[in-house]
Amino acid sequence: MNININTDENLAPIGIFDSGVGGLTVAREIIRQLPNESIVYFGDTARVPYGSKSKGTIIKYSRQIVRFLQTRKVKAIVIACNTASALALDELQNEFELPIIGVVKSGAKTAVANTYTKRIGVIGTEGTIHSQIYTKVIHEYDAEAVVIGRPCPLFVPLVEEGWLHDTVTDEVARRYLSEFDDKNIDSLILGCTHYPLLRSTIKKIMGERVNLINPAYETALNLRELLSANNLTSPLETIADSRMHKFYVSDTPEKFQAFGNSIDLPFYIEKVEQINIEAF
Amino acid sequence: MNININTDENLAPIGIFDSGVGGLTVAREIIRQLPNESIVYFGDTARVPYGSKSKGTIIKYSRQIVRFLQTRKVKAIVIACNTASALALDELQNEFELPIIGVVKSGAKTAVANTYTKRIGVIGTEGTIHSQIYTKVIHEYDAEAVVIGRPCPLFVPLVEEGWLHDTVTDEVARRYLSEFDDKNIDSLILGCTHYPLLRSTIKKIMGERVNLINPAYETALNLRELLSANNLTSPLETIADSRMHKFYVSDTPEKFQAFGNSIDLPFYIEKVEQINIEAF
Repeated sequence: MNININTDENLAPIGIFDSGVGGLTVAREIIRQLPNESIVYFGDTARVPYGSKSKGTIIKYSRQIVRFLQTRKVKAIVIACNTASALALDELQNEFELPIIGVVKSGAKTAVANTYTKRIGVIGTEGTIHSQIYTKVIHEYDAEAVVIGRPCPLFVPLVEEGWLHDTVTDEVARRYLSEFDDKNIDSLILGCTHYPLLRSTIKKIMGERVNLINPAYETALNLRELLSANNLTSPLETIADSRMHKFYVSDTPEKFQAFGNSIDLPFYIEKVEQINIEAF
Repeated sequence: MNININTDENLAPIGIFDSGVGGLTVAREIIRQLPNESIVYFGDTARVPYGSKSKGTIIKYSRQIVRFLQTRKVKAIVIACNTASALALDELQNEFELPIIGVVKSGAKTAVANTYTKRIGVIGTEGTIHSQIYTKVIHEYDAEAVVIGRPCPLFVPLVEEGWLHDTVTDEVARRYLSEFDDKNIDSLILGCTHYPLLRSTIKKIMGERVNLINPAYETALNLRELLSANNLTSPLETIADSRMHKFYVSDTPEKFQAFGNSIDLPFYIEKVEQINIEAF
Protein backbone atom coordinates (compact mmCIF):
# COMPACT_ATOMS: atom_id res chain seq x y z
CA MET A 1 0.00 0.00 0.00
CA ASN A 2 1.19 3.43 -0.89
CA ILE A 3 0.79 5.84 2.03
CA ASN A 4 2.28 8.83 0.28
CA ILE A 5 -0.71 9.89 -1.76
CA ASN A 6 -1.05 13.50 -2.85
CA THR A 7 -4.76 13.35 -3.53
CA ASP A 8 -4.94 16.27 -5.95
CA GLU A 9 -2.33 14.81 -8.24
CA ASN A 10 -3.63 11.28 -7.88
CA LEU A 11 -7.10 12.39 -8.89
CA ALA A 12 -5.73 14.10 -11.99
CA PRO A 13 -6.68 12.56 -15.34
CA ILE A 14 -4.53 10.57 -17.77
CA GLY A 15 -3.80 12.25 -21.10
CA ILE A 16 -4.16 10.09 -24.20
CA PHE A 17 -3.52 11.29 -27.73
CA ASP A 18 -3.66 10.06 -31.28
CA SER A 19 -3.65 11.51 -34.80
CA GLY A 20 -7.40 10.96 -34.91
CA VAL A 21 -10.07 8.51 -33.82
CA GLY A 22 -7.99 5.30 -33.88
CA GLY A 23 -6.55 5.88 -30.42
CA LEU A 24 -10.03 5.43 -28.96
CA THR A 25 -9.32 1.68 -29.19
CA VAL A 26 -6.46 2.30 -26.74
CA ALA A 27 -8.59 4.58 -24.54
CA ARG A 28 -11.22 1.84 -24.41
CA GLU A 29 -8.67 -0.67 -23.11
CA ILE A 30 -7.38 1.80 -20.48
CA ILE A 31 -10.90 2.56 -19.27
CA ARG A 32 -11.64 -1.17 -19.03
CA GLN A 33 -8.49 -2.03 -17.11
CA LEU A 34 -8.19 1.12 -14.97
CA PRO A 35 -11.82 1.93 -14.28
CA ASN A 36 -11.00 4.29 -11.40
CA GLU A 37 -9.02 6.65 -13.61
CA SER A 38 -10.43 9.46 -15.71
CA ILE A 39 -9.00 10.41 -19.09
CA VAL A 40 -8.47 13.44 -21.32
CA TYR A 41 -8.32 12.34 -24.95
CA PHE A 42 -7.02 14.46 -27.82
CA GLY A 43 -7.45 13.47 -31.49
CA ASP A 44 -5.58 15.59 -34.06
CA THR A 45 -8.33 15.32 -36.66
CA ALA A 46 -7.32 18.54 -38.45
CA ARG A 47 -3.88 17.15 -39.31
CA VAL A 48 -4.61 13.42 -39.57
CA PRO A 49 -3.01 11.16 -40.84
CA TYR A 50 0.46 11.07 -39.27
CA GLY A 51 1.61 7.87 -41.01
CA SER A 52 3.03 9.46 -44.15
CA LYS A 53 4.60 12.54 -42.53
CA SER A 54 8.19 13.23 -41.49
CA LYS A 55 9.77 12.76 -38.08
CA GLY A 56 10.25 16.52 -37.61
CA THR A 57 6.59 17.24 -38.30
CA ILE A 58 5.39 14.45 -35.99
CA ILE A 59 7.62 15.69 -33.15
CA LYS A 60 6.33 19.22 -33.60
CA TYR A 61 2.68 18.12 -33.58
CA SER A 62 3.19 15.81 -30.59
CA ARG A 63 4.93 18.57 -28.63
CA GLN A 64 1.97 20.90 -29.18
CA ILE A 65 -0.40 18.19 -27.98
CA VAL A 66 1.61 17.49 -24.81
CA ARG A 67 1.59 21.22 -24.07
CA PHE A 68 -2.18 21.27 -24.52
CA LEU A 69 -2.64 18.21 -22.28
CA GLN A 70 -0.54 19.90 -19.61
CA THR A 71 -3.10 22.71 -19.50
CA ARG A 72 -5.67 20.01 -18.64
CA LYS A 73 -3.46 19.03 -15.65
CA VAL A 74 -2.89 15.43 -16.67
CA LYS A 75 -0.67 13.30 -14.42
CA ALA A 76 0.72 11.06 -17.18
CA ILE A 77 0.45 10.72 -20.96
CA VAL A 78 -0.15 7.75 -23.23
CA ILE A 79 0.77 8.17 -26.90
CA ALA A 80 -1.91 5.99 -28.44
CA CYS A 81 -0.61 6.54 -31.98
CA ASN A 82 2.03 4.09 -33.22
CA THR A 83 3.58 6.62 -35.61
CA ALA A 84 3.97 9.26 -32.89
CA SER A 85 5.24 6.61 -30.45
CA ALA A 86 7.77 5.53 -33.06
CA LEU A 87 9.00 8.98 -34.05
CA ALA A 88 8.43 11.29 -31.05
CA LEU A 89 8.46 9.36 -27.75
CA ASP A 90 12.20 9.77 -26.98
CA GLU A 91 12.13 13.45 -27.74
CA LEU A 92 9.04 14.08 -25.61
CA GLN A 93 10.43 12.09 -22.69
CA ASN A 94 13.56 14.27 -22.80
CA GLU A 95 11.65 17.51 -23.03
CA PHE A 96 8.90 17.04 -20.46
CA GLU A 97 8.93 16.14 -16.77
CA LEU A 98 5.73 14.15 -16.64
CA PRO A 99 5.66 10.39 -17.30
CA ILE A 100 4.96 9.51 -20.96
CA ILE A 101 4.57 6.07 -22.51
CA GLY A 102 3.81 4.90 -26.03
CA VAL A 103 2.14 1.86 -27.54
CA VAL A 104 5.22 0.53 -29.36
CA LYS A 105 7.11 -0.77 -26.33
CA SER A 106 4.00 -2.57 -25.11
CA GLY A 107 3.42 -4.24 -28.46
CA ALA A 108 7.05 -5.29 -28.71
CA LYS A 109 7.06 -6.74 -25.20
CA THR A 110 3.92 -8.81 -25.80
CA ALA A 111 5.27 -10.15 -29.07
CA VAL A 112 8.55 -11.26 -27.50
CA ALA A 113 6.69 -12.90 -24.62
CA ASN A 114 4.50 -14.88 -27.02
CA THR A 115 6.72 -15.96 -29.90
CA TYR A 116 8.14 -19.48 -30.14
CA THR A 117 9.77 -19.22 -33.55
CA LYS A 118 11.34 -15.86 -32.63
CA ARG A 119 10.11 -14.58 -35.97
CA ILE A 120 7.76 -11.61 -35.58
CA GLY A 121 5.84 -9.64 -38.22
CA VAL A 122 4.82 -6.00 -37.86
CA ILE A 123 2.33 -4.06 -39.97
CA GLY A 124 1.84 -0.30 -39.68
CA THR A 125 2.00 3.04 -41.47
CA GLU A 126 4.96 4.01 -43.64
CA GLY A 127 6.30 6.22 -40.81
CA THR A 128 6.18 3.43 -38.24
CA ILE A 129 7.66 0.71 -40.46
CA HIS A 130 10.41 2.83 -42.03
CA SER A 131 11.49 4.04 -38.58
CA GLN A 132 12.26 0.36 -37.76
CA ILE A 133 11.24 1.23 -34.21
CA TYR A 134 9.60 -2.16 -33.55
CA THR A 135 12.78 -3.96 -34.60
CA LYS A 136 14.88 -1.79 -32.28
CA VAL A 137 12.61 -2.23 -29.26
CA ILE A 138 12.10 -5.95 -29.84
CA HIS A 139 15.88 -6.38 -29.93
CA GLU A 140 16.14 -4.74 -26.52
CA TYR A 141 14.06 -7.64 -25.18
CA ASP A 142 15.51 -10.38 -27.38
CA ALA A 143 18.52 -9.71 -29.58
CA GLU A 144 17.93 -12.90 -31.57
CA ALA A 145 14.39 -12.19 -32.69
CA VAL A 146 13.88 -11.67 -36.42
CA VAL A 147 11.45 -8.84 -37.21
CA ILE A 148 9.80 -8.44 -40.61
CA GLY A 149 7.93 -5.17 -41.24
CA ARG A 150 5.44 -4.21 -43.93
CA PRO A 151 3.72 -0.83 -44.39
CA CYS A 152 -0.01 -1.05 -45.25
CA PRO A 153 -0.93 2.51 -46.27
CA LEU A 154 -4.40 1.67 -47.63
CA PHE A 155 -5.67 0.05 -44.41
CA VAL A 156 -6.48 3.36 -42.68
CA PRO A 157 -8.50 4.81 -45.60
CA LEU A 158 -10.28 1.45 -46.03
CA VAL A 159 -11.28 1.46 -42.34
CA GLU A 160 -12.39 5.08 -42.62
CA GLU A 161 -14.46 4.17 -45.69
CA GLY A 162 -16.13 1.54 -43.49
CA TRP A 163 -15.13 -1.37 -45.76
CA LEU A 164 -14.23 -3.65 -42.83
CA HIS A 165 -15.62 -6.87 -44.35
CA ASP A 166 -15.21 -6.44 -48.06
CA THR A 167 -13.70 -8.16 -51.08
CA VAL A 168 -11.57 -5.09 -51.91
CA THR A 169 -10.16 -5.04 -48.38
CA ASP A 170 -9.54 -8.81 -48.63
CA GLU A 171 -7.55 -8.34 -51.84
CA VAL A 172 -5.52 -5.39 -50.50
CA ALA A 173 -4.79 -7.34 -47.30
CA ARG A 174 -3.77 -10.45 -49.26
CA ARG A 175 -1.32 -8.37 -51.26
CA TYR A 176 0.22 -6.60 -48.27
CA LEU A 177 0.35 -9.73 -46.10
CA SER A 178 1.95 -11.85 -48.85
CA GLU A 179 5.12 -10.22 -47.51
CA PHE A 180 4.95 -12.87 -44.77
CA ASP A 181 4.59 -15.92 -47.04
CA ASP A 182 7.27 -18.47 -46.17
CA LYS A 183 8.66 -16.18 -43.46
CA ASN A 184 7.51 -18.56 -40.71
CA ILE A 185 6.31 -15.84 -38.33
CA ASP A 186 4.08 -16.89 -35.42
CA SER A 187 3.20 -13.39 -34.18
CA LEU A 188 1.99 -10.33 -36.06
CA ILE A 189 1.87 -6.94 -34.34
CA LEU A 190 -1.05 -4.74 -35.42
CA GLY A 191 1.13 -1.63 -35.30
CA CYS A 192 -1.55 0.99 -36.04
CA THR A 193 -4.60 1.71 -33.91
CA HIS A 194 -6.95 1.32 -36.88
CA TYR A 195 -5.84 -2.23 -37.65
CA PRO A 196 -7.64 -4.06 -34.82
CA LEU A 197 -10.82 -3.11 -36.69
CA LEU A 198 -9.55 -5.30 -39.59
CA ARG A 199 -8.72 -8.19 -37.25
CA SER A 200 -11.08 -10.72 -38.85
CA THR A 201 -9.80 -9.99 -42.38
CA ILE A 202 -6.18 -10.27 -41.25
CA LYS A 203 -6.88 -13.42 -39.23
CA LYS A 204 -8.52 -15.10 -42.24
CA ILE A 205 -5.39 -14.52 -44.33
CA MET A 206 -2.72 -15.20 -41.71
CA GLY A 207 -4.44 -18.33 -40.37
CA GLU A 208 -4.78 -19.80 -36.89
CA ARG A 209 -1.08 -20.34 -36.35
CA VAL A 210 -0.22 -16.66 -36.30
CA ASN A 211 -1.03 -14.74 -33.13
CA LEU A 212 -2.34 -11.22 -33.79
CA ILE A 213 -1.02 -8.76 -31.21
CA ASN A 214 -2.91 -5.58 -30.35
CA PRO A 215 -0.57 -3.34 -28.32
CA ALA A 216 -3.55 -1.63 -26.58
CA TYR A 217 -4.01 -4.35 -23.98
CA GLU A 218 -0.39 -4.37 -22.81
CA THR A 219 -0.27 -0.56 -22.94
CA ALA A 220 -3.01 -0.40 -20.30
CA LEU A 221 -1.02 -2.83 -18.10
CA ASN A 222 2.15 -0.74 -18.54
CA LEU A 223 0.22 2.39 -17.66
CA ARG A 224 -0.93 0.79 -14.42
CA GLU A 225 2.71 -0.02 -13.50
CA LEU A 226 3.82 3.49 -14.43
CA LEU A 227 1.17 5.11 -12.23
CA SER A 228 2.04 2.83 -9.37
CA ALA A 229 5.80 3.43 -9.67
CA ASN A 230 5.20 7.20 -9.62
CA ASN A 231 2.64 7.12 -6.77
CA LEU A 232 0.05 8.47 -9.15
CA THR A 233 -2.69 5.83 -8.92
CA SER A 234 -6.20 7.16 -8.37
CA PRO A 235 -7.36 6.77 -4.75
CA LEU A 236 -10.94 6.26 -5.91
CA GLU A 237 -12.44 2.94 -4.97
CA THR A 238 -15.42 3.38 -7.21
CA ILE A 239 -15.58 3.51 -10.99
CA ALA A 240 -14.80 6.98 -12.33
CA ASP A 241 -17.90 8.88 -13.42
CA SER A 242 -17.78 8.68 -17.20
CA ARG A 243 -18.70 12.36 -17.37
CA MET A 244 -15.20 12.99 -15.98
CA HIS A 245 -13.69 11.81 -19.28
CA LYS A 246 -12.99 14.67 -21.67
CA PHE A 247 -12.58 14.54 -25.44
CA TYR A 248 -10.89 17.18 -27.58
CA VAL A 249 -10.19 17.37 -31.31
CA SER A 250 -8.56 19.85 -33.67
CA ASP A 251 -11.26 19.66 -36.39
CA THR A 252 -15.06 19.64 -35.98
CA PRO A 253 -16.40 17.19 -33.38
CA GLU A 254 -19.21 15.46 -35.30
CA LYS A 255 -17.34 12.69 -37.14
CA PHE A 256 -15.20 11.91 -34.13
CA GLN A 257 -18.22 11.58 -31.89
CA ALA A 258 -20.03 9.32 -34.37
CA PHE A 259 -17.02 7.01 -34.70
CA GLY A 260 -16.39 6.97 -30.93
CA ASN A 261 -19.95 5.94 -30.27
CA SER A 262 -19.74 3.13 -32.85
CA ILE A 263 -16.84 1.13 -31.35
CA ASP A 264 -18.28 -0.28 -28.16
CA LEU A 265 -16.82 2.11 -25.60
CA PRO A 266 -18.03 1.43 -22.05
CA PHE A 267 -19.95 4.74 -22.11
CA TYR A 268 -21.52 7.27 -24.46
CA ILE A 269 -19.45 10.26 -25.65
CA GLU A 270 -21.75 13.20 -25.06
CA LYS A 271 -19.43 16.09 -25.67
CA VAL A 272 -16.38 16.67 -27.87
CA GLU A 273 -14.67 20.06 -27.84
CA GLN A 274 -12.68 21.57 -30.72
CA ILE A 275 -9.47 23.40 -29.81
CA ASN A 276 -6.85 25.34 -31.81
CA ILE A 277 -3.87 23.01 -31.43
CA GLU A 278 -1.54 25.26 -33.42
CA ALA A 279 -1.71 27.81 -30.58
CA PHE A 280 0.19 25.44 -28.22
CA MET B 1 -1.97 46.20 -76.34
CA ASN B 2 -1.76 47.23 -72.76
CA ILE B 3 0.40 50.33 -72.40
CA ASN B 4 -0.08 50.72 -68.66
CA ILE B 5 2.43 48.15 -67.48
CA ASN B 6 3.99 48.51 -64.05
CA THR B 7 6.92 46.23 -64.77
CA ASP B 8 7.72 45.26 -61.19
CA GLU B 9 4.25 43.98 -60.52
CA ASN B 10 3.92 42.39 -63.95
CA LEU B 11 7.11 40.47 -63.42
CA ALA B 12 5.87 39.15 -60.07
CA PRO B 13 5.13 35.42 -59.88
CA ILE B 14 1.78 33.64 -59.72
CA GLY B 15 1.01 31.87 -56.45
CA ILE B 16 -0.46 28.36 -56.74
CA PHE B 17 -1.40 26.21 -53.78
CA ASP B 18 -2.75 22.77 -53.01
CA SER B 19 -3.05 20.44 -50.03
CA GLY B 20 -0.08 18.50 -51.40
CA VAL B 21 1.42 17.32 -54.65
CA GLY B 22 -1.79 16.99 -56.70
CA GLY B 23 -1.85 20.66 -57.64
CA LEU B 24 1.32 20.18 -59.65
CA THR B 25 -0.98 18.91 -62.42
CA VAL B 26 -2.53 22.40 -62.43
CA ALA B 27 0.88 24.11 -62.22
CA ARG B 28 1.97 22.05 -65.22
CA GLU B 29 -0.96 23.30 -67.28
CA ILE B 30 -0.32 26.92 -66.26
CA ILE B 31 3.36 26.67 -67.17
CA ARG B 32 2.43 25.15 -70.54
CA GLN B 33 -0.15 27.78 -71.41
CA LEU B 34 1.54 30.83 -69.83
CA PRO B 35 5.21 30.11 -70.48
CA ASN B 36 6.27 33.69 -69.81
CA GLU B 37 5.02 33.63 -66.22
CA SER B 38 6.92 32.35 -63.21
CA ILE B 39 5.20 30.56 -60.34
CA VAL B 40 5.48 30.09 -56.58
CA TYR B 41 3.92 26.78 -55.59
CA PHE B 42 2.98 25.78 -52.04
CA GLY B 43 1.94 22.20 -51.10
CA ASP B 44 0.59 21.73 -47.57
CA THR B 45 2.16 18.29 -47.19
CA ALA B 46 2.22 18.43 -43.37
CA ARG B 47 -1.58 18.75 -43.18
CA VAL B 48 -2.66 16.85 -46.30
CA PRO B 49 -5.35 15.64 -47.07
CA TYR B 50 -7.96 18.41 -47.06
CA GLY B 51 -10.80 16.30 -48.49
CA SER B 52 -12.16 14.94 -45.20
CA LYS B 53 -11.73 18.09 -43.10
CA SER B 54 -14.25 20.78 -42.12
CA LYS B 55 -14.90 24.09 -43.83
CA GLY B 56 -13.55 26.07 -40.86
CA THR B 57 -10.27 24.18 -40.88
CA ILE B 58 -9.85 24.50 -44.66
CA ILE B 59 -10.49 28.27 -44.50
CA LYS B 60 -7.93 28.65 -41.72
CA TYR B 61 -5.28 26.65 -43.58
CA SER B 62 -5.94 28.46 -46.87
CA ARG B 63 -5.72 31.86 -45.16
CA GLN B 64 -2.30 30.98 -43.73
CA ILE B 65 -1.14 29.92 -47.18
CA VAL B 66 -2.34 33.14 -48.85
CA ARG B 67 -0.50 35.12 -46.16
CA PHE B 68 2.64 33.12 -46.89
CA LEU B 69 2.30 33.62 -50.65
CA GLN B 70 1.92 37.35 -50.08
CA THR B 71 5.40 37.36 -48.50
CA ARG B 72 6.65 35.93 -51.82
CA LYS B 73 5.11 39.00 -53.56
CA VAL B 74 2.77 37.08 -55.86
CA LYS B 75 0.55 39.09 -58.18
CA ALA B 76 -2.38 36.61 -58.25
CA ILE B 77 -3.30 33.28 -56.67
CA VAL B 78 -4.68 30.06 -58.11
CA ILE B 79 -6.24 27.61 -55.64
CA ALA B 80 -5.30 24.36 -57.35
CA CYS B 81 -7.09 22.23 -54.74
CA ASN B 82 -10.75 21.47 -55.44
CA THR B 83 -11.62 21.13 -51.74
CA ALA B 84 -10.08 24.50 -50.86
CA SER B 85 -11.69 26.08 -53.96
CA ALA B 86 -15.03 24.65 -52.84
CA LEU B 87 -14.83 25.66 -49.19
CA ALA B 88 -12.55 28.71 -48.96
CA LEU B 89 -12.56 30.72 -52.24
CA ASP B 90 -15.39 33.14 -51.33
CA GLU B 91 -13.93 33.84 -47.91
CA LEU B 92 -10.44 34.47 -49.31
CA GLN B 93 -11.73 36.74 -52.07
CA ASN B 94 -13.50 38.82 -49.41
CA GLU B 95 -10.49 38.99 -47.12
CA PHE B 96 -7.68 39.72 -49.55
CA GLU B 97 -7.12 42.41 -52.15
CA LEU B 98 -5.19 40.39 -54.68
CA PRO B 99 -6.96 38.43 -57.45
CA ILE B 100 -7.70 34.81 -56.48
CA ILE B 101 -9.26 32.09 -58.63
CA GLY B 102 -10.05 28.44 -57.98
CA VAL B 103 -10.34 25.34 -60.15
CA VAL B 104 -14.03 24.71 -59.49
CA LYS B 105 -15.43 27.53 -61.60
CA SER B 106 -13.22 26.50 -64.52
CA GLY B 107 -14.32 22.88 -64.31
CA ALA B 108 -17.98 23.88 -64.10
CA LYS B 109 -17.70 26.23 -67.09
CA THR B 110 -16.07 23.60 -69.30
CA ALA B 111 -18.69 21.02 -68.37
CA VAL B 112 -21.57 23.33 -69.22
CA ALA B 113 -19.94 24.26 -72.54
CA ASN B 114 -19.56 20.60 -73.50
CA THR B 115 -22.69 18.82 -72.32
CA TYR B 116 -25.50 17.95 -74.74
CA THR B 117 -27.68 15.97 -72.35
CA LYS B 118 -27.33 18.67 -69.65
CA ARG B 119 -26.60 15.87 -67.22
CA ILE B 120 -23.18 16.25 -65.61
CA GLY B 121 -21.38 13.97 -63.16
CA VAL B 122 -18.80 15.17 -60.61
CA ILE B 123 -16.36 13.07 -58.60
CA GLY B 124 -14.21 14.48 -55.79
CA THR B 125 -13.38 14.31 -52.10
CA GLU B 126 -16.06 14.21 -49.41
CA GLY B 127 -15.50 17.91 -48.70
CA THR B 128 -15.94 18.93 -52.34
CA ILE B 129 -18.98 16.76 -53.04
CA HIS B 130 -20.83 17.47 -49.79
CA SER B 131 -20.32 21.20 -50.30
CA GLN B 132 -22.37 20.86 -53.53
CA ILE B 133 -20.19 23.64 -54.89
CA TYR B 134 -20.08 22.21 -58.42
CA THR B 135 -23.89 22.08 -58.51
CA LYS B 136 -24.14 25.70 -57.37
CA VAL B 137 -21.59 27.01 -59.86
CA ILE B 138 -22.94 24.95 -62.77
CA HIS B 139 -26.39 26.36 -62.08
CA GLU B 140 -25.00 29.88 -62.41
CA TYR B 141 -24.12 29.00 -66.01
CA ASP B 142 -27.15 26.81 -66.75
CA ALA B 143 -30.01 26.57 -64.29
CA GLU B 144 -31.44 23.53 -66.06
CA ALA B 145 -28.38 21.31 -65.82
CA VAL B 146 -28.68 18.22 -63.61
CA VAL B 147 -25.58 17.56 -61.54
CA ILE B 148 -24.86 14.19 -59.91
CA GLY B 149 -21.99 14.06 -57.41
CA ARG B 150 -20.14 11.12 -55.89
CA PRO B 151 -17.30 11.25 -53.33
CA CYS B 152 -14.41 8.83 -54.05
CA PRO B 153 -12.33 8.90 -50.85
CA LEU B 154 -10.07 5.95 -51.75
CA PHE B 155 -8.84 7.44 -55.05
CA VAL B 156 -6.25 9.72 -53.44
CA PRO B 157 -4.64 6.99 -51.29
CA LEU B 158 -4.69 4.61 -54.29
CA VAL B 159 -2.85 7.20 -56.42
CA GLU B 160 -0.39 7.83 -53.60
CA GLU B 161 0.19 4.06 -53.32
CA GLY B 162 1.04 4.17 -57.04
CA TRP B 163 -1.69 1.66 -58.02
CA LEU B 164 -2.68 3.60 -61.15
CA HIS B 165 -3.28 0.58 -63.37
CA ASP B 166 -4.42 -2.13 -61.01
CA THR B 167 -7.28 -4.58 -60.48
CA VAL B 168 -7.98 -3.19 -56.99
CA THR B 169 -8.24 0.34 -58.38
CA ASP B 170 -10.49 -1.00 -61.19
CA GLU B 171 -12.84 -2.57 -58.64
CA VAL B 172 -12.94 0.51 -56.38
CA ALA B 173 -13.58 2.74 -59.41
CA ARG B 174 -16.34 0.43 -60.70
CA ARG B 175 -18.06 0.62 -57.33
CA TYR B 176 -17.83 4.40 -57.01
CA LEU B 177 -18.75 5.07 -60.64
CA SER B 178 -21.77 2.74 -60.56
CA GLU B 179 -23.41 5.82 -59.06
CA PHE B 180 -23.71 7.01 -62.68
CA ASP B 181 -25.34 3.87 -64.13
CA ASP B 182 -28.53 4.81 -65.97
CA LYS B 183 -28.02 8.49 -65.11
CA ASN B 184 -27.35 9.37 -68.75
CA ILE B 185 -24.50 11.80 -68.04
CA ASP B 186 -22.29 12.80 -70.97
CA SER B 187 -19.66 14.73 -68.98
CA LEU B 188 -17.79 13.80 -65.81
CA ILE B 189 -15.74 16.41 -63.94
CA LEU B 190 -12.55 15.06 -62.37
CA GLY B 191 -13.03 17.26 -59.32
CA CYS B 192 -9.79 16.47 -57.50
CA THR B 193 -6.27 17.12 -58.76
CA HIS B 194 -5.21 13.51 -58.17
CA TYR B 195 -7.91 12.07 -60.41
CA PRO B 196 -6.44 12.91 -63.83
CA LEU B 197 -3.77 10.34 -62.91
CA LEU B 198 -6.57 7.71 -62.90
CA ARG B 199 -7.94 8.92 -66.23
CA SER B 200 -7.44 5.65 -68.12
CA THR B 201 -9.15 3.58 -65.40
CA ILE B 202 -12.08 6.00 -65.25
CA LYS B 203 -12.34 6.18 -69.06
CA LYS B 204 -12.46 2.38 -69.33
CA ILE B 205 -15.44 2.25 -66.97
CA MET B 206 -17.34 5.31 -68.17
CA GLY B 207 -16.89 4.51 -71.86
CA GLU B 208 -16.32 6.66 -74.93
CA ARG B 209 -19.60 8.53 -74.69
CA VAL B 210 -18.71 10.30 -71.46
CA ASN B 211 -16.35 13.24 -71.72
CA LEU B 212 -13.85 13.42 -68.83
CA ILE B 213 -13.23 17.03 -67.79
CA ASN B 214 -9.99 18.07 -66.11
CA PRO B 215 -10.47 21.60 -64.70
CA ALA B 216 -6.72 22.34 -64.95
CA TYR B 217 -6.82 23.27 -68.64
CA GLU B 218 -9.65 25.81 -68.30
CA THR B 219 -8.10 27.16 -65.09
CA ALA B 220 -5.00 28.17 -67.00
CA LEU B 221 -7.18 29.93 -69.60
CA ASN B 222 -9.10 31.75 -66.87
CA LEU B 223 -5.86 32.80 -65.24
CA ARG B 224 -4.71 34.34 -68.49
CA GLU B 225 -7.95 36.38 -68.69
CA LEU B 226 -7.62 37.40 -65.05
CA LEU B 227 -4.06 38.64 -65.54
CA SER B 228 -5.05 40.53 -68.64
CA ALA B 229 -8.10 42.14 -67.00
CA ASN B 230 -5.92 43.32 -64.11
CA ASN B 231 -3.01 44.50 -66.30
CA LEU B 232 -0.80 41.92 -64.65
CA THR B 233 0.45 39.94 -67.64
CA SER B 234 4.19 39.35 -67.75
CA PRO B 235 5.97 41.66 -70.21
CA LEU B 236 8.53 38.95 -70.96
CA GLU B 237 8.64 37.83 -74.56
CA THR B 238 10.79 34.84 -73.84
CA ILE B 239 9.99 31.74 -71.83
CA ALA B 240 10.49 32.27 -68.09
CA ASP B 241 13.70 30.75 -66.80
CA SER B 242 12.51 27.62 -64.99
CA ARG B 243 14.88 28.46 -62.14
CA MET B 244 12.50 31.35 -61.42
CA HIS B 245 9.80 28.88 -60.32
CA LYS B 246 9.82 28.29 -56.56
CA PHE B 247 8.40 25.33 -54.64
CA TYR B 248 7.54 25.29 -50.95
CA VAL B 249 6.04 22.60 -48.71
CA SER B 250 5.11 22.29 -45.04
CA ASP B 251 6.64 18.82 -44.53
CA THR B 252 9.99 17.47 -45.74
CA PRO B 253 10.76 18.12 -49.44
CA GLU B 254 11.93 14.66 -50.62
CA LYS B 255 8.62 12.95 -51.43
CA PHE B 256 7.24 16.08 -53.05
CA GLN B 257 10.29 16.47 -55.24
CA ALA B 258 10.21 12.81 -56.31
CA PHE B 259 6.52 13.02 -57.25
CA GLY B 260 6.96 16.35 -59.04
CA ASN B 261 9.75 14.96 -61.15
CA SER B 262 7.66 11.91 -62.09
CA ILE B 263 4.68 13.67 -63.73
CA ASP B 264 6.15 15.12 -66.88
CA LEU B 265 6.61 18.74 -65.85
CA PRO B 266 8.28 20.85 -68.53
CA PHE B 267 11.38 21.18 -66.30
CA TYR B 268 13.20 19.50 -63.43
CA ILE B 269 12.41 20.56 -59.83
CA GLU B 270 15.82 21.13 -58.32
CA LYS B 271 14.93 22.72 -55.04
CA VAL B 272 11.98 22.48 -52.65
CA GLU B 273 11.98 24.49 -49.45
CA GLN B 274 10.18 23.56 -46.23
CA ILE B 275 8.46 26.38 -44.33
CA ASN B 276 6.53 26.60 -41.06
CA ILE B 277 3.05 27.37 -42.38
CA GLU B 278 1.49 27.59 -38.91
CA ALA B 279 3.49 30.78 -38.31
CA PHE B 280 1.48 32.68 -40.95
